[in-house]
Formats: sequence, C-alpha cells, structure tokens
Amino acid sequence: MKKHNFSAGPCILPQDVLKKASEAVLNFNGLDLSLIEISHRSKEFVEVMENARNLVKELLNVPNGYSVLFLQGGASLEFLMTAYNLLKVDGKAAYLDTGAWAAKALKEAKLLGEIDVVASSKDKTYNYIPKNYAIPADVDYFHCTSNNTIYGTQIKEFPKTDSLLVCDMSSDIFSKQIDVSKFDLIYAGAQKNMGPAGTTLVIVKDSILGKTGRKIPSMLDYQVHINKDSMFNTPPVFPVYVSMLTLQWLKDLGGVAAIEKINEEKAALLYAEIDRNPLFKGFAEVEDRSLMNVTFNLTNEEDKEAFDKIWNAAGISGIKGHRSVGGYRASIYNAMPIESIQVLVNAMQQLEK
Amino acid sequence: MKKHNFSAGPCILPQDVLKKASEAVLNFNGLDLSLIEISHRSKEFVEVMENARNLVKELLNVPNGYSVLFLQGGASLEFLMTAYNLLKVDGKAAYLDTGAWAAKALKEAKLLGEIDVVASSKDKTYNYIPKNYAIPADVDYFHCTSNNTIYGTQIKEFPKTDSLLVCDMSSDIFSKQIDVSKFDLIYAGAQKNMGPAGTTLVIVKDSILGKTGRKIPSMLDYQVHINKDSMFNTPPVFPVYVSMLTLQWLKDLGGVAAIEKINEEKAALLYAEIDRNPLFKGFAEVEDRSLMNVTFNLTNEEDKEAFDKIWNAAGISGIKGHRSVGGYRASIYNAMPIESIQVLVNAMQQLEK
Repeated sequence: MKKHNFSAGPCILPQDVLKKASEAVLNFNGLDLSLIEISHRSKEFVEVMENARNLVKELLNVPNGYSVLFLQGGASLEFLMTAYNLLKVDGKAAYLDTGAWAAKALKEAKLLGEIDVVASSKDKTYNYIPKNYAIPADVDYFHCTSNNTIYGTQIKEFPKTDSLLVCDMSSDIFSKQIDVSKFDLIYAGAQKNMGPAGTTLVIVKDSILGKTGRKIPSMLDYQVHINKDSMFNTPPVFPVYVSMLTLQWLKDLGGVAAIEKINEEKAALLYAEIDRNPLFKGFAEVEDRSLMNVTFNLTNEEDKEAFDKIWNAAGISGIKGHRSVGGYRASIYNAMPIESIQVLVNAMQQLEK
Repeated sequence: MKKHNFSAGPCILPQDVLKKASEAVLNFNGLDLSLIEISHRSKEFVEVMENARNLVKELLNVPNGYSVLFLQGGASLEFLMTAYNLLKVDGKAAYLDTGAWAAKALKEAKLLGEIDVVASSKDKTYNYIPKNYAIPADVDYFHCTSNNTIYGTQIKEFPKTDSLLVCDMSSDIFSKQIDVSKFDLIYAGAQKNMGPAGTTLVIVKDSILGKTGRKIPSMLDYQVHINKDSMFNTPPVFPVYVSMLTLQWLKDLGGVAAIEKINEEKAALLYAEIDRNPLFKGFAEVEDRSLMNVTFNLTNEEDKEAFDKIWNAAGISGIKGHRSVGGYRASIYNAMPIESIQVLVNAMQQLEK
C-alpha cells in the first residue's frame, strides 16, 4: 500500500512520473543505455533539457526577454547568486523577512552590500505576512519569499515596486498562476512541485544582468549559464529529467490553472476541518494561510499520543511540524491527491470521537 | 543488447547499481515510498549519507582529521571554493596547467588572488604532463588535475611540496590507490567512477580551514558543510544514493587495489593494440598515458569512414574524441568490462584487415 506522503520536501511526486523515471534509469528512450550513463551533450539529453525549459515557459507563460535555467545548489546558492548578479558595488537591497529561509537569503546578501529589512514577522514566530511596508526607492532590488514552508504562510499579493522584484518561489511555484512579467528574477529549488532534489529553476529577465560593476565567478554568473543553455558544466541529469516528466504531467493535467483549482479545493477541505474541529487550531493567520503547507496544533497537547497513533495507523507519513513551530504540518503539493487529505481529515474526526 | 559505452562522463555505471537505483525510485528500502519523495532528514536517507561517507573513508583509507563531503556544483564550483577556502587575502597560489579543466580552475582562483602558473603543456595541446617545475615556497597552496580526460594524460607521481596540495581527481578517483595523507584537499565530480552527475565529493583536511581572513558565503564554506554533515541544505538525494551503491559495488569487488589491477590490464590491452596496429597512433606521451581515457588518432584520416562504420556495427558508443584533440577517446572507467575493450580492439584489427 502506498503511503499518504505529506512530507515538506523532498516530497510526493506523481506516481506515473516515478514509474517513467525508474524505467529511464535502466533503459532511456530505447537506447539500451541508462539515462545516467549517457553524455549530457548527447542529442537525447540536450532534448530533455530543451523540453524542460520549454515546458516551464509554456506552463508559466514566460514572456520573451526572460531566460529559463536549470542549475545546482538549491535556493541556498541562489541567495548568494541573487546578490552577486544584482547588487551593485556599494549598492543596497531590500528584503522582506517572512521566515527562516528569507533570513538565510538576506544573510548571504549582506556579505556583498547593505541590506534593508523592510519588515519582519519574527515577533510572532512568522505566523503572518507583513503588509503595508515601504520599499525604499534607491535599492537595487526587493527580495521576498512567496511561500513559507515552515510556518504555512503565503504571499497572496506581491508589493508594487519600481525596483527589481526578486522572489524565492521554491515551495509554491507551479501551484498557482503567476504573472511572470511582474518579476525580474524567480528561483526555486526543484524538490517541491517540480522534481527531486538536486536542481534549481531560475527564471531571469535578461535585461537586468551585467549592471553591478562586479566580477562574478563563472558558476555564480547567470549570464554564463544563459550563454551555455544550462550546460556550462555537467548538469544534474537525473533531477532535470524527472523535472521534465513532472512538468509534462502537469501540462497533461491541464496546466497551472487546472492545478490551482484543485489545490484550492484540497486546502479548503483541510482548513475547514481545522476550523470546525475543537481539538485543533491553525497556526498561521487566516488571511495568510498557505495552500501548500497547512500548519496546525492540538488545542490540548495531551491528545498528542492518541492522534499520532490514529494517523500512523491510517498510513499517513511526514506530518510532524517543524521544530520551531511544533504541532503538525501537512504539505499538500501538486501531486498530493485529495483522497489523501480526506484520510487526514478522517483521522482528525476520529480523534474527536 | 547493452551497448559498449565508452562515454567520457557521465559514463558507464555497474549494471547491478543501475538495477538497484531503478528499484529505489519506485520503492526505497521497502518503505512503500520512492527514494526521491522522502525527507532528506529521514532516518533512512541520513543512513544513506553516512554509508556513502564511510565507504569513501574505507575505500581510500582516509586518515583521521579529514572530512568527507557530498556537495553540489561539480568540480566547476570547487574551482571557486578552493580559492575561497584556502587563498588568503592578498595571498598567492600555484597551479599546474595540464588542460582545459586545469585552466578553468585557475581562472576562477584569479578572481580572489594572485595565481602563479608553475608549468603548462599547452604548447603541445596538453599531450604530456610537465615535470621538474618549481613550486614557490610562499604560496598558500598548489593545485593540480590528476587526470586529463580530454587529452588522455595522467599524473603518475605527484610533486613533493611544503605548501598545501590540492587536487582535482574528478576523472580518476577510486581507479587506483592514493595516499590521501599526502593531500590537503581532494575534490571530484561524481560522474566518472562514483555515480551520476549531480554531486561532488570533497575530502578535506580539517586543520587547513579557517585561515584565510576572508568572509566565505555559507554555501561555499567547507566548514559550514562539515558542521552539518553535508546537510546544510537539501542534498542531491538520488546522485548521493547511486554513489553509495557504486562505492558498495567497488568494495564488494575487492576495493581500490583490486580495481587498479583490472584497470591496468584493461588499459594495457588497448594501448598494446594502438602501438601494434600501424593504422593508429596514440595521442598522449607514452609515459603520461591515462589509465582512464585512452586517446588515439588514425594514421591516415582517410580511414575514418571505414573505421566509424566498423565500431558502430560492433555496438560501440561514445568514442569520438574531444573537438580540441580530434580522433578517438575510449574512456575505460571502473565499470567498463574488459570484454568491451576487446570488442574495440577487434574493431581496430578488422580495419587493418
């Protein structure tokens, strides 16, 4: 029996994608060779990279003038690359502090310039998204994190700003429609809605690059990777391939508009139970609730043993909350079927009885 | 029929490893979950990381006082990390230029300090390893590339030096015995003898770190990764797992001493044919010939069409030489069976007839 996998990431991927990925490890495209033992410069793998890139463009309706890259190092390396590529010598950048990952992003940028933290929700363990903050006019860029996995908060409306808009979308990209033209740089570790750990998606507006006055090391320079179609060095072949499969799965399902509707239904089902059931309470402020990571606590901690027994018996895995928040976190990414969420809701109702 | 895969990298991996990797993508360790959808902090994956680390220590007899890391970004990111972690502010480093990869390594280091190129074999398209060069006493470290995939040359004896010894062993690590205690930093992209593309092995002497006076970005700081057991951020789960399987395969086969003997036999078989057959000539100087990448050219370029037809018909793939050298390159890494080399030798003899 397949588990109900609520892991925060790496996380559930479509079963059909796992099956195809498993086959390609043995025999890729009928070549009688494994996907992971062929040259990344072979016709067959170059095609994988192109397909993956084109699927991103199609699914997110990426306008002309933007490049799509598949890199390594996760969002953590992007924290540094953002600053290297966009923060001018003696420049300044603005950051919104909505959690541990946002804080890590600005920590790396501080090595290269002055950082203005325009607002923070640290005062309430990041259980809300700050609003009505001012972004200084003289910054090189503004950086925010669209979805905060640990706390279960999500930005519903991005700020209007004249400066460059940079967003870490690691945990909600491809889950809902976005207007890419409003952003200058988007990045996302693959391991939520796109694929396995080991590759990072970058969508960057070409015209913003090359303006910092810095010498950028090759591996940290977006322009270098753009010039080489993400093949400046050997790319992470398997993670890119599985990302391509997952994006194709999403396209076949009807694309981002279709999954957005499903994601809204899934989240509504779980939040409704949290709000109805007196034994549970939500962690995040209602208006900032994430559609990807649903965080909640027991009203009475004494129920913990009983509840843990119930969901374990139901075949649920990965709902333990992050240590900084406690309680529970149900990550309900694109590949999570609503049936699994119903199993969790049933477990919550069983505790009530 | 399985191809005879002479690819330079990503390259052939043991068939048994591919089979196990394929299974784990569907159901890992009997968990009813895929390897690529579980948390990297799960007991099961932490165990994979520990096993991989311990296998490296055991196979290479890594002394106490060294750390073993699995990172991302390939050797290309190590070119930068080497300098960030070891090159002092206002410091100097010495590099041996034995090919395109060595040249890329020193290019990145130049961003952070003064680089002294102690010797280069560029004058003869890198077909030999320079010898009898002097390493200045005042450098922070000396950097070399143990095996040069493109040209088919390999360092047989490493220089004695009082400065730190850094080596890019991407294409020959685990192919022969090395005395790790003579090195201060070893790094290697996985995609030759260790596993699929997407992870980088680093073996670093702990006591050399923290002495540059530089602020190092977190993702580029070896000490950060050491402190977090290669889990500072989400590691490339699949590449690390397959590396673990490949290292276990090598251990079961008898370890590095056993594979070294096999590799010597394999290379001897092919080089003997190159030297015997008047239609072929070796590219690299005889004393510097690589046991991993065998480069050779036709004596008469007019035989190209006939020879290409013969080896294609024999089920051989991946032996086209690098564009900067031309001719042929047979990469005969650990997982390549001697039977496949015999097929290539037969093809060369068939051309002669």
